[in-house]
Amino acid sequence: MEPRVMIILGSASDFPIAEKAVNILETLEVPYDVRVASAHRTHDKVKRIVKESTEGSVEVFIGIAGLSAHLPGIMAANTHKPVVGVPVNVKFGGLDALFATVQMPIGAPVASVGVDRGENAAILAAQIIGAHDEEVRKRLSNMRRNFFFKIKDDEEKLEGKLN
Amino acid sequence: MEPRVMIILGSASDFPIAEKAVNILETLEVPYDVRVASAHRTHDKVKRIVKESTEGSVEVFIGIAGLSAHLPGIMAANTHKPVVGVPVNVKFGGLDALFATVQMPIGAPVASVGVDRGENAAILAAQIIGAHDEEVRKRLSNMRRNFFFKIKDDEEKLEGKLN
Amino acid sequence: MEPRVMIILGSASDFPIAEKAVNILETLEVPYDVRVASAHRTHDKVKRIVKESTEGSVEVFIGIAGLSAHLPGIMAANTHKPVVGVPVNVKFGGLDALFATVQMPIGAPVASVGVDRGENAAILAAQIIGAHDEEVRKRLSNMRRNFFFKIKDDEEKLEGKLN
Amino acid sequence: MEPRVMIILGSASDFPIAEKAVNILETLEVPYDVRVASAHRTHDKVKRIVKESTEGSVEVFIGIAGLSAHLPGIMAANTHKPVVGVPVNVKFGGLDALFATVQMPIGAPVASVGVDRGENAAILAAQIIGAHDEEVRKRLSNMRRNFFFKIKDDEEKLEGKLN
Amino acid sequence: MEPRVMIILGSASDFPIAEKAVNILETLEVPYDVRVASAHRTHDKVKRIVKESTEGSVEVFIGIAGLSAHLPGIMAANTHKPVVGVPVNVKFGGLDALFATVQMPIGAPVASVGVDRGENAAILAAQIIGAHDEEVRKRLSNMRRNFFFKIKDDEEKLEGKLN
Amino acid sequence: MEPRVMIILGSASDFPIAEKAVNILETLEVPYDVRVASAHRTHDKVKRIVKESTEGSVEVFIGIAGLSAHLPGIMAANTHKPVVGVPVNVKFGGLDALFATVQMPIGAPVASVGVDRGENAAILAAQIIGAHDEEVRKRLSNMRRNFFFKIKDDEEKLEGKLN
Amino acid sequence: MEPRVMIILGSASDFPIAEKAVNILETLEVPYDVRVASAHRTHDKVKRIVKESTEGSVEVFIGIAGLSAHLPGIMAANTHKPVVGVPVNVKFGGLDALFATVQMPIGAPVASVGVDRGENAAILAAQIIGAHDEEVRKRLSNMRRNFFFKIKDDEEKLEGKLN
Amino acid sequence: MEPRVMIILGSASDFPIAEKAVNILETLEVPYDVRVASAHRTHDKVKRIVKESTEGSVEVFIGIAGLSAHLPGIMAANTHKPVVGVPVNVKFGGLDALFATVQMPIGAPVASVGVDRGENAAILAAQIIGAHDEEVRKRLSNMRRNFFFKIKDDEEKLEGKLN
Repeated sequence: MEPRVMIILGSASDFPIAEKAVNILETLEVPYDVRVASAHRTHDKVKRIVKESTEGSVEVFIGIAGLSAHLPGIMAANTHKPVVGVPVNVKFGGLDALFATVQMPIGAPVASVGVDRGENAAILAAQIIGAHDEEVRKRLSNMRRNFFFKIKDDEEKLEGKLN
Repeated sequence: MEPRVMIILGSASDFPIAEKAVNILETLEVPYDVRVASAHRTHDKVKRIVKESTEGSVEVFIGIAGLSAHLPGIMAANTHKPVVGVPVNVKFGGLDALFATVQMPIGAPVASVGVDRGENAAILAAQIIGAHDEEVRKRLSNMRRNFFFKIKDDEEKLEGKLN
Repeated sequence: MEPRVMIILGSASDFPIAEKAVNILETLEVPYDVRVASAHRTHDKVKRIVKESTEGSVEVFIGIAGLSAHLPGIMAANTHKPVVGVPVNVKFGGLDALFATVQMPIGAPVASVGVDRGENAAILAAQIIGAHDEEVRKRLSNMRRNFFFKIKDDEEKLEGKLN
Repeated sequence: MEPRVMIILGSASDFPIAEKAVNILETLEVPYDVRVASAHRTHDKVKRIVKESTEGSVEVFIGIAGLSAHLPGIMAANTHKPVVGVPVNVKFGGLDALFATVQMPIGAPVASVGVDRGENAAILAAQIIGAHDEEVRKRLSNMRRNFFFKIKDDEEKLEGKLN
Repeated sequence: MEPRVMIILGSASDFPIAEKAVNILETLEVPYDVRVASAHRTHDKVKRIVKESTEGSVEVFIGIAGLSAHLPGIMAANTHKPVVGVPVNVKFGGLDALFATVQMPIGAPVASVGVDRGENAAILAAQIIGAHDEEVRKRLSNMRRNFFFKIKDDEEKLEGKLN
Repeated sequence: MEPRVMIILGSASDFPIAEKAVNILETLEVPYDVRVASAHRTHDKVKRIVKESTEGSVEVFIGIAGLSAHLPGIMAANTHKPVVGVPVNVKFGGLDALFATVQMPIGAPVASVGVDRGENAAILAAQIIGAHDEEVRKRLSNMRRNFFFKIKDDEEKLEGKLN
Repeated sequence: MEPRVMIILGSASDFPIAEKAVNILETLEVPYDVRVASAHRTHDKVKRIVKESTEGSVEVFIGIAGLSAHLPGIMAANTHKPVVGVPVNVKFGGLDALFATVQMPIGAPVASVGVDRGENAAILAAQIIGAHDEEVRKRLSNMRRNFFFKIKDDEEKLEGKLN
Repeated sequence: MEPRVMIILGSASDFPIAEKAVNILETLEVPYDVRVASAHRTHDKVKRIVKESTEGSVEVFIGIAGLSAHLPGIMAANTHKPVVGVPVNVKFGGLDALFATVQMPIGAPVASVGVDRGENAAILAAQIIGAHDEEVRKRLSNMRRNFFFKIKDDEEKLEGKLN
């Protein structure tokens, strides 16, 4: 199936964060593709992936990177489609990556989620697709309901233990 | 016209940031609505606006707030549609608001843009709508092209002066 | 016995912090109840617990949460009774949670204690109850005296070893 | 009338923050007293005020201080009644004062509100008194309702202008 | 004369910082060129300037940018010649720009100087050229000697006033 | 022998930091005394130790504390003799303790050394005593010379391995 | 009179901070000398002043510097007498200068006071001299008593106005 | 062979960072020398190494240090050749060392690379040499090409696993 979400990792070491996003997209049956490409070291590859994906089936991008984290910004500079950024904690608790992801200049926004928060990047991507695709919105609604039921269940178990 | 973007300000003092967003949406001819409602002080109003808007025509939300900035998070808890958050600088250069906006738990993402960056919130909202609306994407593409031409022009003028 | 303190945890992972509070309240013989409910994921539950508790026997609330830590703020928005907030360290040494807990707008204060400081939340709750309940104040005074005796004892042992 | 809230300012320069607290307490008709005394420079005075007030009519304390902000902590060390701390911004956006106010060791909590947030200190003090004084709770409830009406009014005016 | 230093500003608002660099290079008689180009908004221009300059006469690059400050990193990704980065203070005292400039991944270093420190970028560029150009090294040595004489002179005047 | 340095630990958990100071003072043959006393929990003890020590043989104080770290400041408020403060890392890398130690108001300075840096507190204490005691200054000079010789030796060994 | 305190400013722009120290030393009749010399730009001068002063009459040093603030550390490396450091706020609220002043390695302590706190540097210097000079200790005691009387007086005036 | 790069470590504990630099320089066949010398503890040695190296064959310096990290700045004060600084993480995630390295005053720049980033210091040094030495530039170009091929290879393997 044609990918609707394109995930780019800044480096192979960001894989555990990407995995969290992938698991959510699998659950939501949203087709995706994952690439590894660096804003600085394999820059043309980033650009080529973004350009081709934009013209193809991709509706949302996810960029995952740590440190000076230029990857999501570079992606955002090469497409009119929305780009979600996930700052990864390598140093400073991820504050460097968060700043580099979110503090974009006028005209090239990145939609930043929390540090190491791959799951939320995927949910946000599904929300963006779901804004015009009722099927995805329903699956998202189901997943969140199940997730919230599970939380409620955990809550009740813990409350049972505590009181 | 029915609003496609719903902007909520956490307090009247956030108005200058909202204005930046509104100007962009006007340029892009994306219909919007602006409300002022506080996550803590007029909480039921927030919830009602979000619920009604989600069932209505709204495709994307923008929440603008400073300090402990719970507004975008509360919005995200009440809809499956995407919520863009704009942290506003009141104290600590806006670091408190940035953290409160972006560090959301699993299941309820907020798409944070940079501190005080109302314009980018509007562009991101338009990108989200544009993911399935070619007209908006074209206007966005035009606006960015004009903006980038203007930048190039400014660059050349400045370069002329400098060299 | 009817609870006089209502403790809400933002997530099951905050349990070790809640346990510290519970132990203090046990010692002080202040009846309490513990619930787990998320500001974003089981929001109506938070609201219902706070509303019912406020009308019931609860005199003070304790909210325990990490990251964007909206829980104590949401509790404070739904009651006129005092709400104590405990920021939990998940990222950034807990600075994100501290900011989200303490930087509340005018009209909806949260009484923040230190990061991960569940014991102090319980002591503060007992102080608030003790402001009009002499029995609790006496038990608090005893507990603190014993605690300070123990500290003095530890001090003297250590001093013995050192000098 | 006998003071129910004792406000201590760490230095005369903290007066604008104290004034915010005083205005709220006036509105709520909660009798208070204001003193100026430094944790380091007029330390015995702090101690004497706290001891005497604790034995007297005072139910809650408010300590207002900037920089290394030891005042609220010293107050908390000398009473079993609750102490609210207001960190004041002198340097570092008030982060030094916030840390010094909130990061108290086990056994001596301070209830910190946000940086420069004198109003919330007063509201919190009234909530603490209101936990057992229905009259104060009613006035608090009225004040908040009026305040929230005013906010709603401002919101509607602004919305009128915006839409 | 052919430029030996290529200065790129991320935006026209960075001009005051660039001016400091330009004044130093004038004093040192090191030919330079100044361009304005954005890592995100006129990205191809950045790349073209860097590629052409690298093949041409340019020996060192200076990139000046604020906020998420990707410019120097993008320059470094497109040349084997050294790139000096100047973080500009727009928000957070420039900490966001400093992190984005200096925290580069392995393989693509940027030589960061202090926040807003355009002069030092120019001196560093001259030191790099001076590593193999005795003329420039002499002029640099003269300039620093004069500068240090001026400082000594100022010091003595101030000491005269003080003692 | 009568103590010339009085070391106070804020809590028994600060012992490893105190040990570093003690070892240096042993080497320098500077008599000292160690106490454990808390600014908040055994406050009168702090005051009594400081008052008595000031009237006795003590020439310099060292206060060691983490978190809101009021201990050195309280010591400084109770003596005209110099007080050295050692911030201890418990949370935030010790930034809370550093701020609480160093940001003292006019009139009550604390001489702060680096986070967890017990050795330097002892050396500073010896320097203060050495300002008028030639014997101590000589021992200090010897110790530093030996230390620097050892460093030089380590340097040479490492250089041997490296080159 | 022979100087007992040697003050070195890192740059002429630090003069307002030095002035605060000078005023205190005048009041205390402690003879001092002021020099301006940079750790990086007139480094030999720093060294020469410190060496000569150490052999001469100087008992304590004060180093005042902003930014990377190496001056007090360099002074401490060239004497066995105590060195007080005053971090000056130029960027980041002075956090860069505070870190550079206080985070010294083992063997070369600097006694840091608060950001921009020239007065406390002078008081600390007088406390160090006063540790063995009863005259200075008396004057210090008088000055602090007067200062604290003045504070008490201000407190009472303000309390009069407030109550 | 005569060293073209002089690496100075502030302390033996910085060795793992230096090793990263050394490995890169070996690969690039750039002759280097490594010394261990402290800005504060063996200061004259630093100065002597820098002076002699500057007059000798050394074209670039690398200074590696943590905490108050004065070493690279002191090196820069003693040569007109470029000095690269590597801040080392000992406390605060290395923020203290980063500030001390990069925030240099006008006239004495240090070229800072990222925290613990020894490899990039070596690459930057090689870029500086390569600005006038085609052989080194070629080897650098090869190394980066191989490195980027390896990254591409890793990327493809990971992509194979993921899709």
